[in-house]
Amino acid sequence: MRPARFISLEGGEGVGKSTQLRALGAVFRARGMEVVETREPGGSPGAEAIRHMLLTGAADRWSARAEALLFAAARADHVEKTIRPALQRGAWVLSDRFLDSSRAYQGMGELTDEDILTLHRIGSAGFLPDRTFILMLPEGEAESRAHSRDGDGSDRIGGRDSAFHRRVSQSFARFAAIEADRVRPIDASGEAAAVTARLLRELEDLLP
Amino acid sequence: MRPARFISLEGGEGVGKSTQLRALGAVFRARGMEVVETREPGGSPGAEAIRHMLLTGAADRWSARAEALLFAAARADHVEKTIRPALQRGAWVLSDRFLDSSRAYQGMGELTDEDILTLHRIGSAGFLPDRTFILMLPEGEAESRAHSRDGDGSDRIGGRDSAFHRRVSQSFARFAAIEADRVRPIDASGEAAAVTARLLRELEDLLP
Ligand SMILES: Nc1ncnc2c1ncn2[C@@H]1O[C@H](COP(=O)(O)OP(=O)(O)O)[C@@H](O)[C@H]1O
Ligand SMILES: Nc1ncnc2c1ncn2[C@@H]1O[C@H](COP(=O)(O)OP(=O)(O)O)[C@@H](O)[C@H]1O
Ligand SMILES: [Mg+2]
Ligand SMILES: [Mg+2]
Repeated sequence: MRPARFISLEGGEGVGKSTQLRALGAVFRARGMEVVETREPGGSPGAEAIRHMLLTGAADRWSARAEALLFAAARADHVEKTIRPALQRGAWVLSDRFLDSSRAYQGMGELTDEDILTLHRIGSAGFLPDRTFILMLPEGEAESRAHSRDGDGSDRIGGRDSAFHRRVSQSFARFAAIEADRVRPIDASGEAAAVTARLLRELEDLLP
Repeated sequence: MRPARFISLEGGEGVGKSTQLRALGAVFRARGMEVVETREPGGSPGAEAIRHMLLTGAADRWSARAEALLFAAARADHVEKTIRPALQRGAWVLSDRFLDSSRAYQGMGELTDEDILTLHRIGSAGFLPDRTFILMLPEGEAESRAHSRDGDGSDRIGGRDSAFHRRVSQSFARFAAIEADRVRPIDASGEAAAVTARLLRELEDLLP
């Protein structure tokens, strides 16, 4: 029996992360695996409290620096209270966003990618997923998906302009280029089931 | 006219920080100076929200790592929203605790002093007080002062054993030894007015 694994799904708003997370969870459970589906920011009681502070209030409520520290604090709690205990009892963990979202969203302005990685070293001893998928869609397609969805698309972080979202996509693509074993870009276009099949193909080496 | 200055008061619980802060504030105001009295964790709306998360809940609510990140996030907000704007308009700032409390309380276990300084570099660009006073009392005396006081002495951080508080005192003394220009140890025993006089003597070079 192979060990439990930690998988993160990344990408811009509306690319299908939550949809694919549920689909992978269903496939894994059908194979008899225990699965923990989680998300960032959040995923543990302390981290959800921090999430609430991060996503509410005016757009300028937090400076980029304070925001990066709050994300790192939430992640430290999430790793310690939810992810590590799940892996230790043999459950697979699927997270809707993780470190690479902080790198893409907070590590490309006043703070650098190295700063975000340093915060992760201090907060979570540098703990990384076994595999990270970057869901990629042509510009505009994710937006129209996200807009057709009811609900959480207009929080402090989602509500930014298209140049911002383009820079985020480029950062994600760069992580896939420089950490090719952990971080895999995935074509997220087409039917949801086709995307799930692409993800499963990129997990064959890890699955039992 | 000399520039406005930022002064922090540090030391264990019950040594007289809040008492001396108010006394210094009164002296400065009597000289016509504008004074902002503030405290950590807290001192700005965002940082006070973080303070509430830090000081409530079970003692093990936050790991040492998450706690250090939350303190650094609160400090980033405090510096940006309260301290820097006050100094820029010419007000003197007196803070009841600042960075050195994080170094003494969070930087001596799982995290190192260097980690805490790194968080401060990322969160607040390494911003330091012009002068920091460490109020020092013989062991036991601070405890009996704190116990005779009603109120906030039993939060998540205060309620620890005497070996812990001894290590904190030793850390504070070490900062005074290695950063002798900024950090000054002050004998906090005797009448409050005598302690205030000692503080003012160590501020002569900064005062207008
Ligand atoms: N492959 C797909 N084709 C068409 N619509 C999709 C597809 N995957 C997801 N959607 C829809 O697009 C919207 C955004 O998907 P979601 O999984 O919530 O994205 P994310 O979590 O990345 O923001 C939802 O309304 C979802 O039902
Ligand atoms: N010099 C002093 N002598 C005696 N009692 C004092 C003195 N300074 C402060 N106190 C009292 O000791 C208690 C703790 O003082 P406080 O200023 O609240 O300390 P801290 O803010 O460092 O915890 C309070 O009840 C205060 O009135
Ligand atoms: Mg989603
Ligand atoms: Mg006090």
